[in-house]
Amino acid sequence: MEFSSKLLEQAVYEMSQLPGIGKRTALRLVLHLLRQSESQTEHLTQALTKLRTDIKFCKNCHNISDVELCEICSNPNRDASVVCVVEDVRDVMAIENTSQYRGQYHVLGGKISPLDGIGPQDLTIHSLVEKVKAGEIEEIIFALSSTMEGDTTNFYIYRQLEEYRIKTSTIARGIAVGDELEYADEVTLGRSILNRIPFENSLKN
Amino acid sequence: MEFSSKLLEQAVYEMSQLPGIGKRTALRLVLHLLRQSESQTEHLTQALTKLRTDIKFCKNCHNISDVELCEICSNPNRDASVVCVVEDVRDVMAIENTSQYRGQYHVLGGKISPLDGIGPQDLTIHSLVEKVKAGEIEEIIFALSSTMEGDTTNFYIYRQLEEYRIKTSTIARGIAVGDELEYADEVTLGRSILNRIPFENSLKN
Ligand SMILES: [Zn+2]
Ligand SMILES: [Zn+2]
Repeated sequence: MEFSSKLLEQAVYEMSQLPGIGKRTALRLVLHLLRQSESQTEHLTQALTKLRTDIKFCKNCHNISDVELCEICSNPNRDASVVCVVEDVRDVMAIENTSQYRGQYHVLGGKISPLDGIGPQDLTIHSLVEKVKAGEIEEIIFALSSTMEGDTTNFYIYRQLEEYRIKTSTIARGIAVGDELEYADEVTLGRSILNRIPFENSLKN
Repeated sequence: MEFSSKLLEQAVYEMSQLPGIGKRTALRLVLHLLRQSESQTEHLTQALTKLRTDIKFCKNCHNISDVELCEICSNPNRDASVVCVVEDVRDVMAIENTSQYRGQYHVLGGKISPLDGIGPQDLTIHSLVEKVKAGEIEEIIFALSSTMEGDTTNFYIYRQLEEYRIKTSTIARGIAVGDELEYADEVTLGRSILNRIPFENSLKN
């Protein structure tokens, strides 16, 4: 792309550094901002700057938070003895959205991924082990995505916690509620069969 | 979406004001920035701010430019008597990319669109008429998209220029080079037939 302006080129370049935003999309977004009032660009840049500079993470669960101890961790109605291990804030939002979970979370901040240079020490695993060591936790629920990285991370943490003899579980994988069997992928369908539950239990939901 | 942080919510909100960026995509982009170094967010916000504040438009063709007279308008090898009327900088870039055009441009900055509150006075039509009035222009080529708004804008300008008796033309519409006839939409195919050109002319390209 040949740009008529270095300023435009630079803005498009920086925008296209975002994941999934190609040069053409970046140009479209930047031209949109140019057509809007200056204040819209200001609002966007200020919100991003403020987030990046003032961002805090809950000292207990490591989720993004504006205060030292997040709303979930400081809620006395949440069961602190059950901890759901997730990758990032999106997973917390997704699980909270179900209204089915009353325990706490532990946000790892990623998954172990040697290819991306992410090792156990880049995640909040040490802090989780410390919590378990302190005897506060009775059950750990693994809720990482079921990819190779997710499985590796689950297993790494599992081994770290083995000596403390707490209960560990992993969220059920299977065919989505309402989905037709014939359209399900075979891995998911296979897990659905292997991890079948007593019929009476399914009546409770 | 229930956010664990107002700062996060605000950043996602502002990001989702961009066209085609939903809340989920906005969250993904914002979390990406959080995982990168602070300097990446700085580079993005600075580039956007600088573009929005320092942006200039060429005083002749109104294209985005870092200088008073853009590179095309100040190039003595470009034919100033032929002016291609386009909507925005993307069209200039697309046509320049073909290396087929040696005239100048006139960037309207949009199309007449009563529904969006865009009238002729919001575009650079007056400046185009002034250039024609000054006798500098021999041919105007309309290259707006062939939508109702594009056609309306073409026709409005055409009527404004009628009295000056200059040549006006519109870019050819038809089936893309290399496309199969059977897959073309009927409007485009219809135009291809109506606007057929002498066979000898097609041999020149
Ligand atoms: Zn917390
Ligand atoms: Zn110019």
